[in-house]
Amino acid sequence: MTDISIAQSVILPPIKEAAARLGIPEDDLEPYGRYKAKLPLHLIAPEKIAAAKLILVTAITPTPAGEGKTTVSIGLGDGLSKLGKKVVVVLREPSLGPVFGAKGGATGGGHSQVSPMVDINLHFTGDFNAVEKANNLLAALLDNAIQTPNHPLRIDPRTVLWKRCLDLNDRSLRQTIVGLGGKANGVMRSDGFNITAASEVMAILCLATSLPDLKAKLGNILVAFSYANEPIYARQLQAEAAMTILLRDALKPNLVQTLEQTPALVHGGPFANIAQGTNTVLATRMGLSLGDYVVTEAGFGADLGAEKFLNIKCGYAGLAPAAVVLVATVRALRHHGGAPAAELNTPDLARCERGFANLAKHIENIQKFGYQPVVAINHFVTDTPEEVALVQQLCHARGVEAVLSTSWAEGGAGAATLAEAVLANIAKGTNHLRPLYAWDQPVKTKIETIAREVYGAVGVDYTAQAEADLRRIDRLGLAGLPICMAKTQKSFSDNEKLINRPEGFRVTVRECELAAGAGFLIPILGTLVRMPGLPPVPASAGMEIDDDGVITGLS
Amino acid sequence: MTDISIAQSVILPPIKEAAARLGIPEDDLEPYGRYKAKLPLHLIAPEKIAAAKLILVTAITPTPAGEGKTTVSIGLGDGLSKLGKKVVVVLREPSLGPVFGAKGGATGGGHSQVSPMVDINLHFTGDFNAVEKANNLLAALLDNAIQTPNHPLRIDPRTVLWKRCLDLNDRSLRQTIVGLGGKANGVMRSDGFNITAASEVMAILCLATSLPDLKAKLGNILVAFSYANEPIYARQLQAEAAMTILLRDALKPNLVQTLEQTPALVHGGPFANIAQGTNTVLATRMGLSLGDYVVTEAGFGADLGAEKFLNIKCGYAGLAPAAVVLVATVRALRHHGGAPAAELNTPDLARCERGFANLAKHIENIQKFGYQPVVAINHFVTDTPEEVALVQQLCHARGVEAVLSTSWAEGGAGAATLAEAVLANIAKGTNHLRPLYAWDQPVKTKIETIAREVYGAVGVDYTAQAEADLRRIDRLGLAGLPICMAKTQKSFSDNEKLINRPEGFRVTVRECELAAGAGFLIPILGTLVRMPGLPPVPASAGMEIDDDGVITGLS
Repeated sequence: MTDISIAQSVILPPIKEAAARLGIPEDDLEPYGRYKAKLPLHLIAPEKIAAAKLILVTAITPTPAGEGKTTVSIGLGDGLSKLGKKVVVVLREPSLGPVFGAKGGATGGGHSQVSPMVDINLHFTGDFNAVEKANNLLAALLDNAIQTPNHPLRIDPRTVLWKRCLDLNDRSLRQTIVGLGGKANGVMRSDGFNITAASEVMAILCLATSLPDLKAKLGNILVAFSYANEPIYARQLQAEAAMTILLRDALKPNLVQTLEQTPALVHGGPFANIAQGTNTVLATRMGLSLGDYVVTEAGFGADLGAEKFLNIKCGYAGLAPAAVVLVATVRALRHHGGAPAAELNTPDLARCERGFANLAKHIENIQKFGYQPVVAINHFVTDTPEEVALVQQLCHARGVEAVLSTSWAEGGAGAATLAEAVLANIAKGTNHLRPLYAWDQPVKTKIETIAREVYGAVGVDYTAQAEADLRRIDRLGLAGLPICMAKTQKSFSDNEKLINRPEGFRVTVRECELAAGAGFLIPILGTLVRMPGLPPVPASAGMEIDDDGVITGLS
Repeated sequence: MTDISIAQSVILPPIKEAAARLGIPEDDLEPYGRYKAKLPLHLIAPEKIAAAKLILVTAITPTPAGEGKTTVSIGLGDGLSKLGKKVVVVLREPSLGPVFGAKGGATGGGHSQVSPMVDINLHFTGDFNAVEKANNLLAALLDNAIQTPNHPLRIDPRTVLWKRCLDLNDRSLRQTIVGLGGKANGVMRSDGFNITAASEVMAILCLATSLPDLKAKLGNILVAFSYANEPIYARQLQAEAAMTILLRDALKPNLVQTLEQTPALVHGGPFANIAQGTNTVLATRMGLSLGDYVVTEAGFGADLGAEKFLNIKCGYAGLAPAAVVLVATVRALRHHGGAPAAELNTPDLARCERGFANLAKHIENIQKFGYQPVVAINHFVTDTPEEVALVQQLCHARGVEAVLSTSWAEGGAGAATLAEAVLANIAKGTNHLRPLYAWDQPVKTKIETIAREVYGAVGVDYTAQAEADLRRIDRLGLAGLPICMAKTQKSFSDNEKLINRPEGFRVTVRECELAAGAGFLIPILGTLVRMPGLPPVPASAGMEIDDDGVITGLS
């Protein structure tokens, strides 16, 4: 059975029943159809947040298909529910780029899915669209100011930092020229589009702690410089109120359910290789207000998602996980152990053992943050018992619990052992968040700390452009912001070919962008695109919808 | 009081109560919040459509602010409700371009508004976004095919007809170059963006009669030509199923209410100067299935909106209005009579009488279609009784009823006389639709008929480009499609400076586009942009949202 056919075979109770189980009165629900609802921010209760337990799910360095963090997160949520715990799963929203490209959606898999799967993977409640419109309104206002004769801001069109965005994989939009065609059509300049998940507006939506905070952050976006080299912020274009108006509903967390009726908040969706890679602060805080346990995930491997979650999001949100789950797959260990793509599903104990070095490094990293992780082995049908036993044995030798999760095939029942292991891990009371750096350290110190401690690099090099960017950041007084590294998810290093646990490598900061609104600095390591392309045969070619509206081929 | 403050002062009952009054069971509602809902297509009942009465509201040649067709339509709907009739108002959705630009939203005004005003004027239920994504997915698939080595379609990038779109006023995107930056970033070519309301996908959504019809029409979009000069349609890119999946929910009409609780379907929003300018066929048919009377409108003046409604939409939808209401304002008559912008609000009987020639020509045009129109004088506070009496007298002299509508100030009560006049007009039984041309006539004959009969032109000229376009249309076997003229809304002619009733002029077809999916030909008269620009001080600069989310400055 495919994910979509499993999803379509389950009839869920209306969302108002899920809300009622969380104690949310029907009057507080803003339904979007029968199975989705937005929730008002007044449901966030600070006194409950402090008492609830946050469980962060992260992963080893992934293969292109991903290692199933979302599937494990949902399974773990359902598993905790089965143990009688009041739990809320809190996840990111999918982007349409991967849905129509190669990777597919982001609603989990098998019997561990959030539902309605098709809706969530398409437009859902319109949040991505609202981000896109706010981003592009700012771009239009900026170009309109450039176009207006004698505009007081005197924006230099050669300095524009702000790009337009679109939530699709569309490589042709990476580098464009706009404003062609003469005086009526604007001022010609170099431009480009990011995918919406890579927009600073998405990052802002996910870090905002309230509506006024959202507006303030939007106003702080740095968009360009004047001819006098003074920074131009979005607030100088009087853009932030209109942008906030566009994002008014998008700021409210979305309530859905897992196939086993565990409540789930699915809200916000920044990528983890170029942004913070985790759902909104408001959804996390709301989940902690509504449940005793919140299971959440951070994108890609722990070197990206977990590092940013623990160093950035926790700082801004005033949160600290009670436990960290590290998802590994036998498939990915074979990959890191040297299996070519064609042999990823071929059992191979030797490759597994060699590839364990990748998992070991992630374990060490999580320990540096003050946590003893629980390893969740996300089970695939091609795994042999010997391979699973080997991974468990290697983990146990390091004092780390490693549990098989079969929630893809069995739902929450397949994650019951994992749920128990996580509860036991929390009960020990030994996990205490230790951020790796202090935000007020020098920028290069912060970057080096991440590169050395998390990636295992022996040093950091800076291009002339990066040095200039750092000087600009100093000049603007923004060196005290945390670091949001932009790096390939395929390697600890900035070279995607260096899989497993590379050593002795240096990383290069090519440039350093400034997300003055979101509140972080973005050192860009290696080459990295913010607008993916479609594969030669896109997923869209395999999709169908029949005369009754039944969809197939969406994954 | 502003429109938004009036709208915010009215507390409406939940949308499920409005639905219940129409006999729609709650299980059929897909709520979007408490005051909006999507309705399933199975509510369309052909046997009821035939018995219900459709009332088309159109207008004289408008000033830039518009003459209040939407306000009159809503007022007339409320007025008919007050007379005990079961009525549904069926309207277009607003575009964000005018909302943040100059003109504002499209939810009516004063006490004749559809609600929730802010939601409808912003993202509403996501329909515009779905159109945009479907449009842009097709563009990405097209560029991806061009990028793919040895792609079997062998698309010539110099022939691409399909543009990307964005629902904002953004002149810098009118003409662009995409695909810059080397092999990985696509094939460099000339491109551009339309505003979403001008996308053929919007036109298709609004003409589709069912989900399978939507998919077939999307597949028929002509996007480019091959190096062998063969046409490339969207279906050859396997795009239509994925596009239909994106539009699955957008195809369902949206139910809201007027401030006086008359049910309203607000669905689809093509512009009337470059597309058909009226809401979806499905919403009109659903309105006629749910009510005994449907009040609907077609954009801009009757030379654009009504002509296309009666020649195109009625043909595709199998519909014919029972009555036509022609909205006029004293302000606009002063304008056509020669008042400069600064004196539009200055009473002037002589200018009014001179400008009546514009209204007279629209009356004659409606009569050519087989209708005796009812003129609705949309009352402004600056009108004098003498001016209103003059307009009425000039109409009566032509045997046409002219009624003052004060629904902006008074709601439905202010349109009671208009409602009675419309009912009396229908009761005469003398209105019978006579389309102005047969679709199977030669293309030039069809174009000439509209230009001579509706615009009053003495002839039509064709550029060499237009002649080439017409030959291509013949070669593709599509000459039998109806005509959707693209022309300025400010004049009967193709020169916006020729106000009132110009005579002796010729019009020039600059080029002739082909909407093979939507099913019409688009002769472009004069210069016309499909992507508006923002004014020097955009409306967004005057918007505010306070800490509680209360919005001001949106109109």
